[in-house]
Amino acid sequence: MTSRERFLSAVACQPLDRPPVWIMRQAGRYLPEYRALKAKSSFLEMVKTPELAAEVTLQPLRRFALDAAIIFSDILVIPEAMGQGYKFRDAGGIAMDFRLEDQSQLDRLQSQGVADRLDYVGQALKLVKTQLAGEQALLGFGGSPWTLATYMLEGGSADDFERSKSVFYSNRPLFDALMTKLTAALIEYFQMQIRAGVDAIQIFDSWGGILAGQDYAAASLNWIREIIAALPKGFPVILYAKGTPSQLTDQAFSGASVLGVDWTIDLGVARKLVPGNVALQGNLDPVLMNTSPEIVTRETTRLLETMRGSNGHIFNLGHGIMPQAKLECVEALVSTVTNWK
Amino acid sequence: MTSRERFLSAVACQPLDRPPVWIMRQAGRYLPEYRALKAKSSFLEMVKTPELAAEVTLQPLRRFALDAAIIFSDILVIPEAMGQGYKFRDAGGIAMDFRLEDQSQLDRLQSQGVADRLDYVGQALKLVKTQLAGEQALLGFGGSPWTLATYMLEGGSADDFERSKSVFYSNRPLFDALMTKLTAALIEYFQMQIRAGVDAIQIFDSWGGILAGQDYAAASLNWIREIIAALPKGFPVILYAKGTPSQLTDQAFSGASVLGVDWTIDLGVARKLVPGNVALQGNLDPVLMNTSPEIVTRETTRLLETMRGSNGHIFNLGHGIMPQAKLECVEALVSTVTNWK
Repeated sequence: MTSRERFLSAVACQPLDRPPVWIMRQAGRYLPEYRALKAKSSFLEMVKTPELAAEVTLQPLRRFALDAAIIFSDILVIPEAMGQGYKFRDAGGIAMDFRLEDQSQLDRLQSQGVADRLDYVGQALKLVKTQLAGEQALLGFGGSPWTLATYMLEGGSADDFERSKSVFYSNRPLFDALMTKLTAALIEYFQMQIRAGVDAIQIFDSWGGILAGQDYAAASLNWIREIIAALPKGFPVILYAKGTPSQLTDQAFSGASVLGVDWTIDLGVARKLVPGNVALQGNLDPVLMNTSPEIVTRETTRLLETMRGSNGHIFNLGHGIMPQAKLECVEALVSTVTNWK
Repeated sequence: MTSRERFLSAVACQPLDRPPVWIMRQAGRYLPEYRALKAKSSFLEMVKTPELAAEVTLQPLRRFALDAAIIFSDILVIPEAMGQGYKFRDAGGIAMDFRLEDQSQLDRLQSQGVADRLDYVGQALKLVKTQLAGEQALLGFGGSPWTLATYMLEGGSADDFERSKSVFYSNRPLFDALMTKLTAALIEYFQMQIRAGVDAIQIFDSWGGILAGQDYAAASLNWIREIIAALPKGFPVILYAKGTPSQLTDQAFSGASVLGVDWTIDLGVARKLVPGNVALQGNLDPVLMNTSPEIVTRETTRLLETMRGSNGHIFNLGHGIMPQAKLECVEALVSTVTNWK
């Protein structure tokens, strides 16, 4: 059984001897070979140059026995392709080129043609696909409409998301028009990723968890559901919405095949909240990767035992791996999962 | 019916025409009269001077028809009274005088006698109690052992709580010894608050939500349970643990009479997860207080309607009110609750 077959079997909730494993942000700063490339090119140059993006995507697979590759890219390529660019602030965080404040600014943003303008992602995907040769699964991804909207409405990274929520509460026509446009752009983008050969798409609803519980459907989940419904029937979508454990059951009826969950919920509890035909992905605390191989081995085994006998588990962290993660901890995680019996 | 009676009836899950209302951090920077006092004294001077603490506690009750006062204080007075002082960093956040790293440092911290060293809190409580004259409920509070431990182990505010978790995972004897000491200190402190006349105590497990779901009981909830068990049987305790919606049912069996919940869970959903003899407190999104009275009135009404017919609801925000909150929004919230039919 190839890693790709193992991954797709887990997505389909079929019985497996051990879960497939990949790591959110596995192509990233904790890898010396990533830092070496990063010293020569900026993050956005790497994202926009297919050969570099493909190389970075493949780096972690050369080092660790991971079952899936996730394309090296960024969720904010969508606003940029729509006409709202961005850069990284020196002090950390994102600065958009402007803050979206009214309908006339929104009118100037273009969702149609987004796939063409993001052709560099499609090219990178094809390069990786060829290299993987069907051995490992290839994942595409994008941000959720709500998560992307927060950057666009705040003008960058935010703490309390006061403006985004204020637009949602006080100017619903503008909010809905923005979400409609983002939804259309994401559908086009994901369809292009599927044509380029991805086996699954992960939707990052990274800021879903800052919404009021009563507003999560209207502000985020309903738009995700619309996107999934527009993709080929049954195409595997992983929905990862950080900080939304109380929304798990609703998310299970979004059309997503897999729900990624953060580390704050016991995965055994999550399993009981979600129907058996929806797989779960997660959810080791990423901070563990900064400790020691012994601790990682112990906690990885504990999580595996929690899910023993449950079909449909993709092993992962509960959030992206941190730059200070230790290589020997990643090795301990991966080898514990792949050697598990 | 006095506000105090209304509050205690809600705690006891008895039927009421409308819920009692108070606001987390209601004595704070959004109030001009607070800022006027703060211009003359530091935060810690205000906390440690009974007359000032009492004055600040009462300020919001003069302006708004709140049903409860919560003593103006700080959760970190406990580590300080144990021998680990702190100050506020200029750049924001907390800096402890040192970082707790080993058993010998822990041995020098004193839990016994904490109540004497925190006599200024007891004096402030008595001053407020006299002023309230039984009309409004008086709340005491403290941090949970886990939440206090994070500041002590990190040496101040933290982002990822890497060190606290690392101690939990790799040096459980030190972790448990620290928690045992904090638990003893908090029991002594809360018993003193009860002697000073508080009607209820809120335990802030502000950082409970950063723990792995599988570790929440061992790292936090079990210690809270121990504290509650040591207080007079049935004494009202409100447990507010931000970011822990997946732990609500377990929290309901902690001995707490009330669970405070953050804004990310639909309160109607929370009601179904928690037995009917445990009240719920919350949970309007605090960001709403920065919008407009119209929006606040609409969303407050929506939350009230969600809980119509459910006993045991104490109206509150889902987290502390922010410094930029508008007075007219607070007024809209309070009057909407108090006029609700």
